[in-house]
Amino acid sequence: MTLLTGLSAFPITPADAEGRVDPGALRVLLARLVGSGVDSIGLLGSTGTYAYLSRAERRRALETALDATAGRVPLLVGVGALRTDEAVRLAQDAKGMGAAAGLLAPVSYTPLTDDEVFEHFATVARESGLPLCIYDNPGTTHFRFGPDLVGRLARVPGIVAVKSPAPEPEGVAAHLAALRAAVPEGFPLGYSGDWHAAEALIAGGDAWYSVVAGLFPEAGLAILRAVRAGDAAEARRLDARMRPLWDLFRAFSSLRVVYACADLMGLCHAAPPRPILPLPEAARQRVAGALRALDLS
Amino acid sequence: MTLLTGLSAFPITPADAEGRVDPGALRVLLARLVGSGVDSIGLLGSTGTYAYLSRAERRRALETALDATAGRVPLLVGVGALRTDEAVRLAQDAKGMGAAAGLLAPVSYTPLTDDEVFEHFATVARESGLPLCIYDNPGTTHFRFGPDLVGRLARVPGIVAVKSPAPEPEGVAAHLAALRAAVPEGFPLGYSGDWHAAEALIAGGDAWYSVVAGLFPEAGLAILRAVRAGDAAEARRLDARMRPLWDLFRAFSSLRVVYACADLMGLCHAAPPRPILPLPEAARQRVAGALRALDLS
Repeated sequence: MTLLTGLSAFPITPADAEGRVDPGALRVLLARLVGSGVDSIGLLGSTGTYAYLSRAERRRALETALDATAGRVPLLVGVGALRTDEAVRLAQDAKGMGAAAGLLAPVSYTPLTDDEVFEHFATVARESGLPLCIYDNPGTTHFRFGPDLVGRLARVPGIVAVKSPAPEPEGVAAHLAALRAAVPEGFPLGYSGDWHAAEALIAGGDAWYSVVAGLFPEAGLAILRAVRAGDAAEARRLDARMRPLWDLFRAFSSLRVVYACADLMGLCHAAPPRPILPLPEAARQRVAGALRALDLS
Repeated sequence: MTLLTGLSAFPITPADAEGRVDPGALRVLLARLVGSGVDSIGLLGSTGTYAYLSRAERRRALETALDATAGRVPLLVGVGALRTDEAVRLAQDAKGMGAAAGLLAPVSYTPLTDDEVFEHFATVARESGLPLCIYDNPGTTHFRFGPDLVGRLARVPGIVAVKSPAPEPEGVAAHLAALRAAVPEGFPLGYSGDWHAAEALIAGGDAWYSVVAGLFPEAGLAILRAVRAGDAAEARRLDARMRPLWDLFRAFSSLRVVYACADLMGLCHAAPPRPILPLPEAARQRVAGALRALDLS
């Protein structure tokens, strides 16, 4: 089992209104993950609001997580930034501190070309020495990776995996086949987007980068284990059971919904960074209902 | 003539590879604009790479521009940031230093809702006291303003204008009518996107936020004056003449093209901030050809 396969759990990063990370609250969340059986923790992913935190606060979050996990779960750390030099510094920080790998998204303001994204990734890999997972997340970066670019990047030393948004179930086999044809053998192909992840795993995806597992690792692990046992029917049954939560993720974004979950469960009372607002009360009540229905609260 | 009408010229912000602004090079560019007759200078717009510059460097650019313009041309300054508190600080800086107005884009990573954008803008206006122009630029922010939201924002004290991307010529009259119906009387409606700006002005737009005028103010002023003189045919002739440059703006982005222009003209030799790369040589040659054909070099 290589590092970037299996289930990677993405927690939120509790912080105050000024963007200062709360190490105590982060430890509470990480304690649910350490020893749960997840294959890695995706610290400072999009759900971990990396884009909204300063370099110093990102260091503080990683320091906290390294201490809380004590080597028992590898840490995959978001190192994306708008500027290439800043992403290099963040990746150097993560490497120097002891992260297992970095998650690099092509964060953009001016839309980027394929060649610009290639140079950005190659520079961060080369200058940091941190193994990198390509973070393909057009919903936030507005950059679309084609198989050709993924294939070019997969041959850059230090670029070790890719995380793609899971397509609609009827398209996932073709997506996987196109990527497999483009990358070297054994290059792990993983998926995010919890509501389509079960089908992506059944189709042969190597990893699930999961928001739900950041709070409820068992819910993710149960689905992953059913797939690994060859029991697609059981995986689909477990996935269908989660549909009330998936529907809320799709309606309000998984980020806003997991902040509400953590608050409703009394795990931490952090709000997402403004301008992102906490869910309005009516939506929050729907989240509370889903947690009760799923026996997750 | 209110502040945010007429021609606003948007220069690049020359900076080194580490993102340090070059005041001397910025002065060379600003000298072309002061006294040219442009109605305002759009400092630190998208073309001015505000999103890629630190707060300290944005202060340095504004300090340079205030000194170089000496009150002769009002400065409209980009104050956008991913976090609301950071945008507040940038707007407070601009207000305290002497900018005439701020240009605020809903910079996003996690996609924002209308209510989130409303709160973001209202907070920056309230906490800074800086008059704000709504910067609607879905090509970089990936947020789409509808007339309803513009109408709500136009009633917030301190929000004084809107800059929209100029639609295709056949759609501009309807776009203007929809916005006019949503905002209070006299609220200036301006447009960016140089290649459609002439038609937007002919249709009744109040302002042109122009990249080309950041380097070639006369080219923009000639079109604006023809429109103001009621000579749409002359405005269209002048606009059609610029088509070689518009085609390059559309193919490679106006930002990359004006960096190449400034370099080819010997005005400054700055490169855009990485990951954005200078134009490849073949494209650069096309830019050189267009400058020669237009007698602009």
